[in-house]
Amino acid sequence: MRFINKSVGSGGKGTNDFIKNVIFEYFGNSFLEELRDGALINLKKESIITSTDSFTVLPEFFPGGDIGKLSIYGTCNDVAVSGGIPEYLTLSLIIPDGYEMEKLLMIFDSMKRAIDEVGVKIISGDTKVIDGISSLIVNTTGFGELKSDLNCYDRIKVGDKVIFSSDIARHSVAVLIARNELGFSSDIESDCCNLYEIIRKLDYSKIKFVRDATRGGVAAVLNEIADKSGKGFLIKEQNIPILESVNYFCEMLGFDPLQMANEGVAVIVVDRDYADEALAIIKESKNGKNAAIVGEVTDNTKVVLETKVGGKRYIEIPAGELLPRIC
Amino acid sequence: MRFINKSVGSGGKGTNDFIKNVIFEYFGNSFLEELRDGALINLKKESIITSTDSFTVLPEFFPGGDIGKLSIYGTCNDVAVSGGIPEYLTLSLIIPDGYEMEKLLMIFDSMKRAIDEVGVKIISGDTKVIDGISSLIVNTTGFGELKSDLNCYDRIKVGDKVIFSSDIARHSVAVLIARNELGFSSDIESDCCNLYEIIRKLDYSKIKFVRDATRGGVAAVLNEIADKSGKGFLIKEQNIPILESVNYFCEMLGFDPLQMANEGVAVIVVDRDYADEALAIIKESKNGKNAAIVGEVTDNTKVVLETKVGGKRYIEIPAGELLPRIC
Repeated sequence: MRFINKSVGSGGKGTNDFIKNVIFEYFGNSFLEELRDGALINLKKESIITSTDSFTVLPEFFPGGDIGKLSIYGTCNDVAVSGGIPEYLTLSLIIPDGYEMEKLLMIFDSMKRAIDEVGVKIISGDTKVIDGISSLIVNTTGFGELKSDLNCYDRIKVGDKVIFSSDIARHSVAVLIARNELGFSSDIESDCCNLYEIIRKLDYSKIKFVRDATRGGVAAVLNEIADKSGKGFLIKEQNIPILESVNYFCEMLGFDPLQMANEGVAVIVVDRDYADEALAIIKESKNGKNAAIVGEVTDNTKVVLETKVGGKRYIEIPAGELLPRIC
Repeated sequence: MRFINKSVGSGGKGTNDFIKNVIFEYFGNSFLEELRDGALINLKKESIITSTDSFTVLPEFFPGGDIGKLSIYGTCNDVAVSGGIPEYLTLSLIIPDGYEMEKLLMIFDSMKRAIDEVGVKIISGDTKVIDGISSLIVNTTGFGELKSDLNCYDRIKVGDKVIFSSDIARHSVAVLIARNELGFSSDIESDCCNLYEIIRKLDYSKIKFVRDATRGGVAAVLNEIADKSGKGFLIKEQNIPILESVNYFCEMLGFDPLQMANEGVAVIVVDRDYADEALAIIKESKNGKNAAIVGEVTDNTKVVLETKVGGKRYIEIPAGELLPRIC
């Protein structure tokens, strides 16, 4: 077994060897191979979208994914839901001293597959090896050209439809079960996926707003949109896509699936005349098979859930950290 | 005393409150206040430079700086030495659960001063609060327009002069002493500073190559340039700027100051006819008072030091992590 030691993050020979023998093997491209302090990019457009995210998850490998896949899709999804084309990523690794090389290579392998799937390039990076951390921390910052701005709150109108691009709460539940602290086993897999695969097929002129529902779940996203747009939502519980097994798990432990993090669910607000067509396109996508129209925009400034039995309650923004960190 | 808890990184109400009440107070601007998942930027040019770096340093506060100042200048310097204008930063914070709010605010205050000094904006960010780390980790990714490419190895010619923009090894020594493990005290301060303040004043058409000498020191930078350009360097020890106290410290402990990390030293290769003028400009800068012409480019592919007594030795690239992490 090989282990990562501090020379890999020293800036000297160990770093150079790691970059040339490992990083280039997995992520090599003409940008990286220039070995600059900063990557030089020639854009075709002047408007770009950028987003940054740091990832740490325990366990690092979970059903349906791992921290590698998560750290690529997570940031690319943020660029995509903003209306950008995920084209470039920077990658910053913070590795615990003594970390197993084989484990790192499995994570790199997973990153590489995610990169190829999205069609993005890693163009600049940084590696630190330190004491005082118990697991890998990965930062990715992504950018790419703006295709069309999908984050204009003032385009949202009463009557627009709301689509969830997949069933909710799967990522949180998969990671929680993978921790083995709850005494459960299941075949639930994280939904961690490439949302650009879905969004790129839609007609951007008829989409009003997109956001991926990660930390805070769909509840946080809906409330944020309501707050910033001055509109509200009426969501029908019976239309919300959720796996039976996920729902069962949440009910048993008292978790609200609306507040649980996803890694492959976009909340998409679309023109009402485009809703059915958009849904059909999404459902044909690899990562959107369980998509559904869940409700619509109202002139009320609240986010209201119409329950299966016909009652109504507010969907609240999560107030604290209810769950251990899962993304 | 107030402490950061996990709700700050939850993506829910705690995160929103932290962003609105703390982040906006220090770093607020029109990009951040749009509260997008990704920032939208309109560039004036199509060629941009980007660079990423994660920072962790113990102690977080040291003479001449702290992790806040380090994380802003560090990334902006990487953009600047590549020939870019540091315009935009993303900021990703990984905060230990229970971290003191007052300490974080001191770091933010220091970041804010550095941002204003460079003239850069934080346009997108991410905050995670986690267990399992013992100190703050900060990732910054910077970008800006390319002014002129300062990282073309093939522009380097035999006879070009090499300038160190300031005295070397100060950052490493200041941090090591601040650890109180060595039983020393001194008034040595880190050199952590804004290198763009220096570089921007130079004539980019007469600069051949610039790189800041962080991890691995000037030794790593000179060897990397030699390796990639197929040229060599002859450096005169007597011309190398170094504080007496720093040199004394290094000699006593057997550290090679050429291999020690700096946070405010650029290695600048310039046309020989421009060298004196460049040096004068650098020495007039706030952060370049101790600059010196230290040697020149040779057709040998080695990096050679001519010692004070007239001997010669190779300047080697550092092979391992000789020192505890200091940047």
